[in-house]
Amino acid sequence: MAATEDPSGASGAPARPGGTAPAGSGRSWWGWGRTDEALPDSECTALAALLPGLPPDPLPVPDVGELTLAPPRVRPPGALAHLVSDGPADRASHTYGKAYRDVVRALHGDMTPAPDLVAHPRSEADLVDLLDWAGTADVAVIPYGGGSSVTGGVEYRGGDHAGVLSLDLSAMDRVLEVDTRSRAARIQAGVYGPALEDQLREQGGGLTLRHFPQSFEFSTLGGWLATRAGGHYATLHTHIDDLVESMRVVTPAGTSESWRLPGSGAGPSPDRLFLGSEGALGVITEAWMRLQDRPVHKASTAVRFAEFGDAVEAVRAISQAGLHPANCRLLDPGEAALAGAAHDGESVLVLGVESAHHPVDGRLAELRTLARDHGGTVSGSGGDDSGGGDTAVGAWRSAFLRMPYLRDGLARMSAITETFETACTWDRFTELHEAVRTGIGAAVEEVTGSPGLVNCRMTHVYPDGAAPYYTVIATGRRGAEGAMWDEIKSAAMEILATHRATVTHHHAVGRDHRPGYDRQRPEPFALALRAAKSALDPRGILNPGVLMDPPPREVA
Amino acid sequence: MAATEDPSGASGAPARPGGTAPAGSGRSWWGWGRTDEALPDSECTALAALLPGLPPDPLPVPDVGELTLAPPRVRPPGALAHLVSDGPADRASHTYGKAYRDVVRALHGDMTPAPDLVAHPRSEADLVDLLDWAGTADVAVIPYGGGSSVTGGVEYRGGDHAGVLSLDLSAMDRVLEVDTRSRAARIQAGVYGPALEDQLREQGGGLTLRHFPQSFEFSTLGGWLATRAGGHYATLHTHIDDLVESMRVVTPAGTSESWRLPGSGAGPSPDRLFLGSEGALGVITEAWMRLQDRPVHKASTAVRFAEFGDAVEAVRAISQAGLHPANCRLLDPGEAALAGAAHDGESVLVLGVESAHHPVDGRLAELRTLARDHGGTVSGSGGDDSGGGDTAVGAWRSAFLRMPYLRDGLARMSAITETFETACTWDRFTELHEAVRTGIGAAVEEVTGSPGLVNCRMTHVYPDGAAPYYTVIATGRRGAEGAMWDEIKSAAMEILATHRATVTHHHAVGRDHRPGYDRQRPEPFALALRAAKSALDPRGILNPGVLMDPPPREVA
Repeated sequence: MAATEDPSGASGAPARPGGTAPAGSGRSWWGWGRTDEALPDSECTALAALLPGLPPDPLPVPDVGELTLAPPRVRPPGALAHLVSDGPADRASHTYGKAYRDVVRALHGDMTPAPDLVAHPRSEADLVDLLDWAGTADVAVIPYGGGSSVTGGVEYRGGDHAGVLSLDLSAMDRVLEVDTRSRAARIQAGVYGPALEDQLREQGGGLTLRHFPQSFEFSTLGGWLATRAGGHYATLHTHIDDLVESMRVVTPAGTSESWRLPGSGAGPSPDRLFLGSEGALGVITEAWMRLQDRPVHKASTAVRFAEFGDAVEAVRAISQAGLHPANCRLLDPGEAALAGAAHDGESVLVLGVESAHHPVDGRLAELRTLARDHGGTVSGSGGDDSGGGDTAVGAWRSAFLRMPYLRDGLARMSAITETFETACTWDRFTELHEAVRTGIGAAVEEVTGSPGLVNCRMTHVYPDGAAPYYTVIATGRRGAEGAMWDEIKSAAMEILATHRATVTHHHAVGRDHRPGYDRQRPEPFALALRAAKSALDPRGILNPGVLMDPPPREVA
Repeated sequence: MAATEDPSGASGAPARPGGTAPAGSGRSWWGWGRTDEALPDSECTALAALLPGLPPDPLPVPDVGELTLAPPRVRPPGALAHLVSDGPADRASHTYGKAYRDVVRALHGDMTPAPDLVAHPRSEADLVDLLDWAGTADVAVIPYGGGSSVTGGVEYRGGDHAGVLSLDLSAMDRVLEVDTRSRAARIQAGVYGPALEDQLREQGGGLTLRHFPQSFEFSTLGGWLATRAGGHYATLHTHIDDLVESMRVVTPAGTSESWRLPGSGAGPSPDRLFLGSEGALGVITEAWMRLQDRPVHKASTAVRFAEFGDAVEAVRAISQAGLHPANCRLLDPGEAALAGAAHDGESVLVLGVESAHHPVDGRLAELRTLARDHGGTVSGSGGDDSGGGDTAVGAWRSAFLRMPYLRDGLARMSAITETFETACTWDRFTELHEAVRTGIGAAVEEVTGSPGLVNCRMTHVYPDGAAPYYTVIATGRRGAEGAMWDEIKSAAMEILATHRATVTHHHAVGRDHRPGYDRQRPEPFALALRAAKSALDPRGILNPGVLMDPPPREVA
């Protein structure tokens, strides 16, 4: 639920434009997003009707002041003291990401992995000083991004470091420079999505990054880059990787800055080594990002299919026709019903096209024709607006943004409610999908004793395959929710690996995906990656445990 | 001149369809391509009129049987003998790539860097055995690809290995599997361009790789991947990197195989580490490549501009308009004249669009409008054909394919004639272009004592920048041609580095580009790359000297 998906459909506008960085007050320390958006107790209680066997009352949300946090084991030198906090609220809110298992542990008041300290550097020089100190003091450094990791990417787990520092770059949040000729901007890594787009708007030129993961409000540019986030575009440029012109990365072995280049064939791409490195090789401090003109032509439509298989074939045909829809999101019957986009067992395909330069009606018409050719019923369309012409489009979009809050409400009711996502080539999709539906259905029954929901949507599609995204909702037992989910998740990773489907399309590896990732990653590449880690981070302080086991460390 | 550019313009067909792998007989051992395409002596002599001060007669082409080759210093074990040749013709033809300085040295009979042996493995198992032996015998292994490197990528230079083995994978030349649902094929790395497309045609499905570098006939899939070749598409998917689904790479530390995935966010991309690794980290043996439907709608046009600057602005507008032309090639006045596409000081922009699914007339009309808006004169167009509707398009295309043979003819006349290419963002293009024209013009005068030609074309363009490609033609002194070019090339690398323009957009780094590459590559990435090299190739046998200095070796 972290770095994923487009809240704006074809509308082109972020979901809540005008918002600014949500760091600090207003953010939930235990759950998704903003405290004022969380479900009140009464709405949580009402959710009990969704699943059999849930307790009647929600878990209370602990008061952050009453949490038990171990005393900090390390202290920064005086010169760095002004950058570092050991306040309980700061430490508590930087203990976990926002995975279901994180939320559940927080609700149960389990603060075991809390960092000793939270650092808020204001400049790259601050960051270099912090890393220097951490290296000499054997302090693990965990880049926090916006804290929206759903894969254990920001949580210290195990290891024997003398201390743990959570690194929060949210004070480094400026768009530093805009090059309108090349349509690119130099942007600091700590900026949250809304503030980034606000600054681009203020600086003129009509440019936008157009990267709208579901976490848009609560994640940062640096987090997107470090985790290869999936963005706005359902086709063509689906990952933020393609929007990167150059990056600056501070490593314990020095600062890496690639040249701003539109394209290059000079050796393996330096940026591609740091993209997806999840803070294990260095800390991304800024990047030149490719921008787009703001689209002025937009249109969207929803198509209904009686058979999910027909809808999949329609999506495959669309992905291979070179039409490049900005949105091409398929909801299976369960997902469509959950979103309120359909109630009759139909699947819904939401299609959106946009352009800053050309009318898009022709492309939308071609998309509708392809969808109809595969058995779809086009139920309406909205041209040049936010897609309001079709209620299914609107329903899906509202539900999409509301979903993480709903998940937290369900979590408080001790329902198991989590997602996982993957990607595979088209030749394997049907078999994989059946295996997931059957296998996860069975795992849910085995773990919980009753059936649950296993829904699917496709978030990003490619000419050669698709990225399905699964939602699991099941009855949990209070106090055992996390362990129950872990068992189901383990079954999911086993199924994905058996079908050679990626352990993650855009949620990153973190620590939770290590078992699947270790099977997926070619062993010689693992050797190379470990060697690169040892060269750049010889003391092993950078986000130990993500991507790989900590290599042997040089302790000063 | 190696991995670059589209010989087919918008025509979609390779220049010489139906050709098969040109390995073996018919290939020139000293110059580009096929012996029967080389300029006869009389045509070489006629070229003397082009530049002042050239000798009246061409350098003779040495008889390969009369070359002086040092005796091989190593011998393979008996079990591998059938895979290895020490024949003088085989060794001579695997001594150099096809850079100007390579051709000149060959013409002067300088075979100093000749490999001791040439290996022709027939399978991955053969290759593993060869690498095992090379590791124990301290033999450097140089993957040859198709031998079309123009950057010293296939030439052993310096170093103290006990022997040198050139590795020719041309016996591993099969399309092994085609997945028409996902539009992808598993292809062995040793296949040459024409044979690859022939096999795809034979296997049905109407699919094509559509990667047509200028070297198409004389380069292999493995070479394209190892050097991040620039291909058919002037926009969008310009590098072969984007066409890769997964790769198999044999390294001394084991074989790496990535999963076939349409997209993934699981850690840094394994493929992106091997793409551009130029044989220094492993030997690519096969890849799953993304294919396209064969285009059935094609159209092209030529646009003339009185001012090169206006043409550049037109290209920038086109690159940022989301129209994705397959061809968008700008020839400056000198280049246009050389190609016979214009004779009056005008620049020529060749535009081509293609689609397997939709008529392209509308897109071509939009492109022509944009070109006209920037001062261009549309001189004709050819719809749904090979662009024959405009003589400038046809003239450019013929000249493009003939150019390497012309270069060799000029080389025999002791003219200096070479190219270099780069890329930069739009904000820096004009300044860079002026610096190259002025600086290289001055370097040519200083080195040769008389003015030369410095022409420019743009081969690939991006929303945020462009890849200009420069041709230099000047008067050389017989016997000093190579050294003279090296001086000019050194000035070029200095200018590129000063402007932070990449040392290569698609010709690769090899050994010749090391000075520029070493300045361009961020030092922490260099540390990581060297560490990866040591982990995968601990004995330092793989293409020593490309990308980096050989790290300290474990010698058995």
